[in-house]
Amino acid sequence: MAAQLSPQQLNEKHRPTLDRALDAIRTRAYWSPHPEHPKAYGESAPADGLAAFKALHGTRFDLDQPGTDGWTGGERSPYGPELGVEYPHADIDVLLPAMRAGMGAWRAAGPETRALVSLEILARISARTHEFAHAVMHTSGQAFMMAFQAGGPHAQDRGLEAVAYAYQEQTRTPAEADWSKPQGKRDPLELRKSFAAAPRGVSLLIGCNTFPTWNGYPGLFASLATGNPVLVKPHPRAVLPLALTVRVAREVLAESGFDPNLVALATERPGEGIAKTLAVRPEVRIIDYTGSTAFGDWLETNARQAQVYTEKAGVNTVLVDSTDDYKGMLANLAFSLSLYSGQMCTTPQNLLIPRDGITTDAGPKSYDEVVADLAASVSGLLGDDARANGLLGALVNPDVKARLDAAADLGDVALASREIANPDFPDAVVRTPAIVKSDGSRKQWDAAEGGYGSEAPYLAECFGPVSFAVAVDSTEEALELLRLTVRDKGAMTVGAYTTSEETERAVEDVCLEELAQLSLNLTGGVYVNQTAAFSDFHGSGGNPAANAALCDAAFVANRFRTVEVRRQG
Amino acid sequence: MAAQLSPQQLNEKHRPTLDRALDAIRTRAYWSPHPEHPKAYGESAPADGLAAFKALHGTRFDLDQPGTDGWTGGERSPYGPELGVEYPHADIDVLLPAMRAGMGAWRAAGPETRALVSLEILARISARTHEFAHAVMHTSGQAFMMAFQAGGPHAQDRGLEAVAYAYQEQTRTPAEADWSKPQGKRDPLELRKSFAAAPRGVSLLIGCNTFPTWNGYPGLFASLATGNPVLVKPHPRAVLPLALTVRVAREVLAESGFDPNLVALATERPGEGIAKTLAVRPEVRIIDYTGSTAFGDWLETNARQAQVYTEKAGVNTVLVDSTDDYKGMLANLAFSLSLYSGQMCTTPQNLLIPRDGITTDAGPKSYDEVVADLAASVSGLLGDDARANGLLGALVNPDVKARLDAAADLGDVALASREIANPDFPDAVVRTPAIVKSDGSRKQWDAAEGGYGSEAPYLAECFGPVSFAVAVDSTEEALELLRLTVRDKGAMTVGAYTTSEETERAVEDVCLEELAQLSLNLTGGVYVNQTAAFSDFHGSGGNPAANAALCDAAFVANRFRTVEVRRQG
Repeated sequence: MAAQLSPQQLNEKHRPTLDRALDAIRTRAYWSPHPEHPKAYGESAPADGLAAFKALHGTRFDLDQPGTDGWTGGERSPYGPELGVEYPHADIDVLLPAMRAGMGAWRAAGPETRALVSLEILARISARTHEFAHAVMHTSGQAFMMAFQAGGPHAQDRGLEAVAYAYQEQTRTPAEADWSKPQGKRDPLELRKSFAAAPRGVSLLIGCNTFPTWNGYPGLFASLATGNPVLVKPHPRAVLPLALTVRVAREVLAESGFDPNLVALATERPGEGIAKTLAVRPEVRIIDYTGSTAFGDWLETNARQAQVYTEKAGVNTVLVDSTDDYKGMLANLAFSLSLYSGQMCTTPQNLLIPRDGITTDAGPKSYDEVVADLAASVSGLLGDDARANGLLGALVNPDVKARLDAAADLGDVALASREIANPDFPDAVVRTPAIVKSDGSRKQWDAAEGGYGSEAPYLAECFGPVSFAVAVDSTEEALELLRLTVRDKGAMTVGAYTTSEETERAVEDVCLEELAQLSLNLTGGVYVNQTAAFSDFHGSGGNPAANAALCDAAFVANRFRTVEVRRQG
Repeated sequence: MAAQLSPQQLNEKHRPTLDRALDAIRTRAYWSPHPEHPKAYGESAPADGLAAFKALHGTRFDLDQPGTDGWTGGERSPYGPELGVEYPHADIDVLLPAMRAGMGAWRAAGPETRALVSLEILARISARTHEFAHAVMHTSGQAFMMAFQAGGPHAQDRGLEAVAYAYQEQTRTPAEADWSKPQGKRDPLELRKSFAAAPRGVSLLIGCNTFPTWNGYPGLFASLATGNPVLVKPHPRAVLPLALTVRVAREVLAESGFDPNLVALATERPGEGIAKTLAVRPEVRIIDYTGSTAFGDWLETNARQAQVYTEKAGVNTVLVDSTDDYKGMLANLAFSLSLYSGQMCTTPQNLLIPRDGITTDAGPKSYDEVVADLAASVSGLLGDDARANGLLGALVNPDVKARLDAAADLGDVALASREIANPDFPDAVVRTPAIVKSDGSRKQWDAAEGGYGSEAPYLAECFGPVSFAVAVDSTEEALELLRLTVRDKGAMTVGAYTTSEETERAVEDVCLEELAQLSLNLTGGVYVNQTAAFSDFHGSGGNPAANAALCDAAFVANRFRTVEVRRQG
């Protein structure tokens, strides 16, 4: 079959976007080719997207993959409905070799073609953002607008960012070089050299439940753009967004004249635990994973044949020292705690507040006042049920609800969680965040290794809408607790509010020394739990929360190797 | 103490060199600022260097390091003489915290200053190349000219290359960025962002016996230039070259106003095995290692708190299919097998030769003829004892000699090793290489995993002057054996001789698929076992011989992390 998408067509269509992306990752200025507003996708897009999503219900999602030996499915939306989609189950002894078959041609196509094909995949996904938004909403439990933005344009941005890094990295060494070494009066030594970016092997993406596309696209596109086939193993509760992605990728690959099996889906039967099997297969040379620390650690320890990129759990801290915009701080924090019911790996968990209170533009505020004002701010933000539903979304799974229900046992509850009814989806479990008061005095955490875990509940990740207002004796103590938390528990984000230059420098030093990303004095419309592709790094890759950052050169540079061929000149 | 070397002085002196290096790694054209010829270092340099080396004999090599709790030493030159140098032994509970003390200032100095200080260290080492040459010769057993070039300018080139990669990598993200996101009719969201390259922690260099500087400098300078303190743990038989390096580094750091403890030496008492202890210390976050597969695998498995870069053992293959320069091929191979008695990780071990012979410009040659002609070529090259001593050097340690002595048991000996007397050093163990005939038929190696090890001696690394003339049934079989060898045993180098375009493409494909560096039809003055910094990659980092290549972006990009601070605009 002749390719329907020629390299020239791809170049005309996508090279300018690639160049803009390359420019953006160099300047870190704001940029995105993917509109955030649902209306930007055309008048019929909302209805079309919803119809396309609904048409999938109760169907077999055929991908025409080799080695399909059955069908499996069973996703139930956190909003209630069963999706009823069945996906192909793969005989991996058939599928994995089939995925390798197209590697040679994909490698030989070179970095630019691989980038442009990747951009075509992203462009087609972008055109179907409304459909993806519903798929993300009904697997993650995110409210529609968040599923639309985080699962659509923001995820596509992160995928494009990875493609840009991959392209840049693979083209730093020229394809050809002439080498001539002077030998005094004798003839120089001469060699012709060629350099090729060569893939490592099959790349395994182990998807997560909460952000299947946003957390999945960086690894998927980084590996594909560096020449590797990608096997997508979604979370069993969030298959659909990645199955749609795989379908689009396979279509585009085939139309561009490549083997569609370079991207494939691996779904699992209930309880099959296929990730453990796949992760140690010799064909699998790269793994991207987002999820629990336990399984991330297992992968790092056991999948020794692969490069393993993990985003695991962490404990995110906001240090509250002082502010010149008390209202803005409270509003900003209230939003951060509420968004997607705190089910983001970047949501603040521990708010370190001096026991003696803080100075603000509204006068001194005691610890109790700060906590009460924050609780009031959250309650105000979520006072209207429609608005609350739009911000909170639904709890993604029963484990989150169980943790929330147990929060009252962890300390004095400063703000109790409230149940919210969702008129459109009566089965949705919607809850406002809880705030628990905690004692952050040194004796709670300044123990020998392993000694504090049971004493201080805030030193364990409590994923979901539970945060701790941790009373500390001083800002110095808060800095020490912050350092300990990042070093031992990891952190995707750190926030701080201070009007003191000295404290600002001290927090910066802790973050530079313990390798955490810091947001200072956010009081407006940017939140500590949100990062923008092309400008912000997501995670540092240098503390226990994650061994990679999204996205930097280190995230892509080891997914391929440069193979050199020297010939005598 | 005020810095004696100001940033401005360093900039004037070294920025042009850094820029040339950055240019070289982009073009891969020939370049080096470090002259290869001993005469280029000044008239008195040879005598001065020898005198400086001799003055070290029988002395205490004081480095004024914190935590020195005794003295240890005991190097004996492979040429015979005891060096009699004693080095500080460190209490690592004192030394490691002291090394971290200067990290903050070193980080804050930024990528350019760190690069320029690194270049000053290299420049001072370069000025003392003659002294280093003797130190390398009398620890590695390399002949003087090789110790001079590989241990001097070539090692310095590799160090400079690592500095250039480190600088480039750290400056890809700007130090500051303004970010402004349009919000329709509302005011844009604005943030000021800063990005800093932040080090991971103490970097441990575990040195090797054969190339203490050449294999040590890439990791040492990559880590130092990315802000990490570097603890140098030399091989107990090759301490002096790295101790001299540490001394120079400490001097330059102090003179530039930084803490000299950013670079320190850790020597061990006999049998102490300090590498295992250091490798799992929580302060150690990066490890560079060159040596045995067994300990490399141990490090990768156990030093989980660190980024681990290893160069281990491999089995290097040369595929002989056909040639249009039979004499040139024989001469080139003879030199490759002889240089440093085959004690290079890049020396060919297995020569795959069709049982039915090959076509050449000198007519068809049978397997036996090729082997006999190669044996004659080696004998001719090493026929003169003075020339032989200059090429072979000495066997580095008794293990190599034991393996050579056992070679006769591995097959028919086509070329027996010969003892060479060294008139200057009567105790030196100097041996010419042996060539052993082997059966490369498929039944010897096409067995289930683990089945062939005992049958085919050429599938195990036989480090030292032993190579195998492996008779294969066909070039196709040779290609399969090459693939198997690279995949299962690893390879630092692959060579091939062929006049067939088809075979050339097939060998290239194997190397691209199994990730090995290929040299084609070398018949002149470039040898498969030599690579040039700034142009050639040493190893691929993608097969079992090494998990990193010297030097690419992946070698440096994960030695630091980018820490971002966002402030509301």
